Amino acid sequence: MDPARTLPDADVGRLLVSCEDGPGIVAAISGFLHARGANIVQSDQDTTDPVGGRFFLRVVFRMPDLELWLPALQEEFAAEVAERFGMWFRLRAASVPTRVAVFVSRYEHCLLDLLWRWRRGEMPVDIVQVVSNHPDLQKEVASFDVPYAHIPVTKDTKPEAERQQVELIAGRVDLVVLARYMQVLTGDFLARIGVPAINIHHSFLPAFAGAGPYEQARTRGVKLVGATAHYVTEDLDEGPIIEQDVARISHRDSVAGISRRGADVERTVLARAVTWHCEDRVLRDGHTTIVF
Amino acid sequence: MDPARTLPDADVGRLLVSCEDGPGIVAAISGFLHARGANIVQSDQDTTDPVGGRFFLRVVFRMPDLELWLPALQEEFAAEVAERFGMWFRLRAASVPTRVAVFVSRYEHCLLDLLWRWRRGEMPVDIVQVVSNHPDLQKEVASFDVPYAHIPVTKDTKPEAERQQVELIAGRVDLVVLARYMQVLTGDFLARIGVPAINIHHSFLPAFAGAGPYEQARTRGVKLVGATAHYVTEDLDEGPIIEQDVARISHRDSVAGISRRGADVERTVLARAVTWHCEDRVLRDGHTTIVF
Amino acid sequence: MDPARTLPDADVGRLLVSCEDGPGIVAAISGFLHARGANIVQSDQDTTDPVGGRFFLRVVFRMPDLELWLPALQEEFAAEVAERFGMWFRLRAASVPTRVAVFVSRYEHCLLDLLWRWRRGEMPVDIVQVVSNHPDLQKEVASFDVPYAHIPVTKDTKPEAERQQVELIAGRVDLVVLARYMQVLTGDFLARIGVPAINIHHSFLPAFAGAGPYEQARTRGVKLVGATAHYVTEDLDEGPIIEQDVARISHRDSVAGISRRGADVERTVLARAVTWHCEDRVLRDGHTTIVF
Amino acid sequence: MDPARTLPDADVGRLLVSCEDGPGIVAAISGFLHARGANIVQSDQDTTDPVGGRFFLRVVFRMPDLELWLPALQEEFAAEVAERFGMWFRLRAASVPTRVAVFVSRYEHCLLDLLWRWRRGEMPVDIVQVVSNHPDLQKEVASFDVPYAHIPVTKDTKPEAERQQVELIAGRVDLVVLARYMQVLTGDFLARIGVPAINIHHSFLPAFAGAGPYEQARTRGVKLVGATAHYVTEDLDEGPIIEQDVARISHRDSVAGISRRGADVERTVLARAVTWHCEDRVLRDGHTTIVF
Repeated sequence: MDPARTLPDADVGRLLVSCEDGPGIVAAISGFLHARGANIVQSDQDTTDPVGGRFFLRVVFRMPDLELWLPALQEEFAAEVAERFGMWFRLRAASVPTRVAVFVSRYEHCLLDLLWRWRRGEMPVDIVQVVSNHPDLQKEVASFDVPYAHIPVTKDTKPEAERQQVELIAGRVDLVVLARYMQVLTGDFLARIGVPAINIHHSFLPAFAGAGPYEQARTRGVKLVGATAHYVTEDLDEGPIIEQDVARISHRDSVAGISRRGADVERTVLARAVTWHCEDRVLRDGHTTIVF
Repeated sequence: MDPARTLPDADVGRLLVSCEDGPGIVAAISGFLHARGANIVQSDQDTTDPVGGRFFLRVVFRMPDLELWLPALQEEFAAEVAERFGMWFRLRAASVPTRVAVFVSRYEHCLLDLLWRWRRGEMPVDIVQVVSNHPDLQKEVASFDVPYAHIPVTKDTKPEAERQQVELIAGRVDLVVLARYMQVLTGDFLARIGVPAINIHHSFLPAFAGAGPYEQARTRGVKLVGATAHYVTEDLDEGPIIEQDVARISHRDSVAGISRRGADVERTVLARAVTWHCEDRVLRDGHTTIVF
Repeated sequence: MDPARTLPDADVGRLLVSCEDGPGIVAAISGFLHARGANIVQSDQDTTDPVGGRFFLRVVFRMPDLELWLPALQEEFAAEVAERFGMWFRLRAASVPTRVAVFVSRYEHCLLDLLWRWRRGEMPVDIVQVVSNHPDLQKEVASFDVPYAHIPVTKDTKPEAERQQVELIAGRVDLVVLARYMQVLTGDFLARIGVPAINIHHSFLPAFAGAGPYEQARTRGVKLVGATAHYVTEDLDEGPIIEQDVARISHRDSVAGISRRGADVERTVLARAVTWHCEDRVLRDGHTTIVF
Repeated sequence: MDPARTLPDADVGRLLVSCEDGPGIVAAISGFLHARGANIVQSDQDTTDPVGGRFFLRVVFRMPDLELWLPALQEEFAAEVAERFGMWFRLRAASVPTRVAVFVSRYEHCLLDLLWRWRRGEMPVDIVQVVSNHPDLQKEVASFDVPYAHIPVTKDTKPEAERQQVELIAGRVDLVVLARYMQVLTGDFLARIGVPAINIHHSFLPAFAGAGPYEQARTRGVKLVGATAHYVTEDLDEGPIIEQDVARISHRDSVAGISRRGADVERTVLARAVTWHCEDRVLRDGHTTIVF
């Protein structure tokens, strides 16, 4: 078997927790798991500020017949632990892939990289739908046996287009990935799909506003092109950052060459961010993320 | 105050633990701390193999009047927790700097970087002694008000030289740093100083044996020069790795230029490794390290 | 049009030169081009040692109706310049893609990355043949409309297999790429195909011998996994290095995770090395390369 | 001798050229040098746009008794080549160090790194003056035997302070380095010193405006901190970029830790930018730089 395959066996569970910090939280959680015969395999913890800050925890545990016990476990954790500390939590089986819808416009590099990694078994996801405002990538996507919904978007049809998108994916996916989707999503859309969305965009030192960023980067003599993957909020390109990386360029690189290096960084960074999210490694705290 | 200063306040403690994995460990530790009014600020945990593997934990906690309670705390932890699980542990106040002896030969870049970071308050250390087999750097070190012991080493005088070194530093330091010290330390020496030693050496892809590594790197068309910081064992350059990094070079770089880039990587990597060790972030597991 | 497409227009030519250094070389070359109405667009030059060393030059030029004049230009350059200085040279139209055969065994990540970049127009190549000692990737390759030759290799059939391989590709390709091809090529094979071959292999600091390198890296606490792309010589994994890169790993990464990061580095490094070779950016000098 | 020492021998010269592109430039330059017995050791060339763009050249050459011939060489090159093509050029002996004044406020890491590299012989410079608007670093600088001018600057005294600064350094330095100097220099000052100035500032993805950038970076969940070295123009932090780099941070890093990583990047990037400038590797083209 390829060593890169990633879904763990059926007895592995993951618990993500965030709440106001205070004494006794870790003892309560580890006591809860211990009492049910769960063995903690990995545990990460962070506190933004020991006095009155937020507390964040990720626990990977192994519990015989987890699948069978999961619903009861979730209920009991809510009642016995979460309520007491005012916790947000997510408790799930690590063997169940995250269902993903990918939104894309015309640039295919990020989409194809996700499809390809998924087919290789590199990511714990199930890509169940591709949505695009253009028909261009239909044939490409068909070869991966994933349904492709072409939903054009103009200024006038945007509300109707978003209604169609929501209808298509609501309840069917756990995550939306914007893989170079060139339309701004409304707050209304984000609220109605009810699952997180991750976006990728190019980043530079310094930042550029406006069109043609690669041309601008060349004009300013920029030496690094980068990409940022972040959770989508109503403020475009301003949500909590999950992952970033850069690649080195020089005056020798043409705009085409800079664009290629940028595309390589974008797809790698997006793949890392989506993988980490789907492995329950990412917790949000206002505008920040904790990546375990 | 400079934001880079690093010693935390007097109430912060750190606990490092490693033992055979099994159920109940985390609950026992967090229960112990909870019962004494300690509030866990940061916690990291790792298990090499959930079934019969090793368990590793780092806890940062805050406890009023820690300094006062520390001796009792250490004793009680040993009796109530460590013994039960067969644990190795280290429990100490984060505000107490690690006492360091730096060994050096003639290349000064790593030594000066450590001295300079220490004086800036960038590292939680106290450099109490420099030891060298050459007199060259005496004046340089004097300007930092650190005693400099010139102890020449030849094949014949090595046992006597090591005896002098041990006499000079035993009991006075918590860590030995080999900052480009060109002598192999004997297993006997390592056993007698009784504290860990960290070494830095250059690294390449691929590795080169023999003299003149930078010349060799140039000859092979190597594109990356690197450095590895590791704990010293009797097998020279083979101990558990703490940190590594690389810098990019090209055919345009002269041997002098490659050597400069290599020196920059060496001092940065060594400073990170020493800082992490002194912040109790590094745990050893046979030939591996866990860096929290 | 996608800004990442790479073939330049038909009037752009490239000249690569290496010879023993001495006075008058640059003047002779630029004089030759100038006299024929060619305008130098980019020029890079290097000398290993000013006294008796080797001289390396890459010139990109623009010349109206280059395609028409190219055969005469090559002949005249040989007679008027190359002979005088004892030069090796390559002079060609930048708009003609390099014909490539890709050899692969079972790991598909490097092969697919090349196919995908080629189809996107990201690399100035034409992939005309895939050769494998296994049938596994046949269907995958078929979707790119590239012929797939399954030529099994055992210890006994190796000479016959190599004979078939040579027959299949000799004269049809300008470059052989070993994209995780797990068979050692004989010197005889390399001589008979008469074109360069580029290989990719994983690299570590420090280097590991033997099987299971990712397991070994995890056991040693290695913090960086890397990849090296190099020209193939009879000494496996020892040819002149074209490009290298690394990715950061930690004790948190499983062997599967390390392997994924390694695969990402391998395909990026191989793509860069092949692109640079096909853009005539790489010159060999014994065991070294000059990458312009 | 330490392999990192950098001043080449007395016969090595360097020529930097920029002009409007057109046919015959390279032939004219190499002809000029060839006729005078100069042997080209290294040559780099770039054109922003082959049709009507700018041409950039760096040539390193070796010429017996260069020092003796240099004044005549400069005069003849101006008359015979530069005038004909409307060139800007710089022609000088590589063995003569660049005279530098360093401006600093209170953060010492960049200043000390430059002083220390200079004393090691790592950079082809001569640091002849430190200028500060604060007295804090006087003692530190004294240990390097460099004069320290404390010239306080307030809103009211700025014109007078700049007058003093100009008087102090004009004609005595070839380069001004702003090593975390927290005052904006006026266009008038830049014009009157008549030599280039290089600045370093921290950079992030995305960029932050306002105070406390490291706190802001932590709040946004930024994963990379960086630094940009650039030529100073009247638009603060907006001049042509010479070099950039980044370091990785995580939610585990405190503001102090982020600040330390940032300081490490700043001093490395500034050292590289200054070294490259002093090795005549950097050419300006409007808002861009060409770094050979």
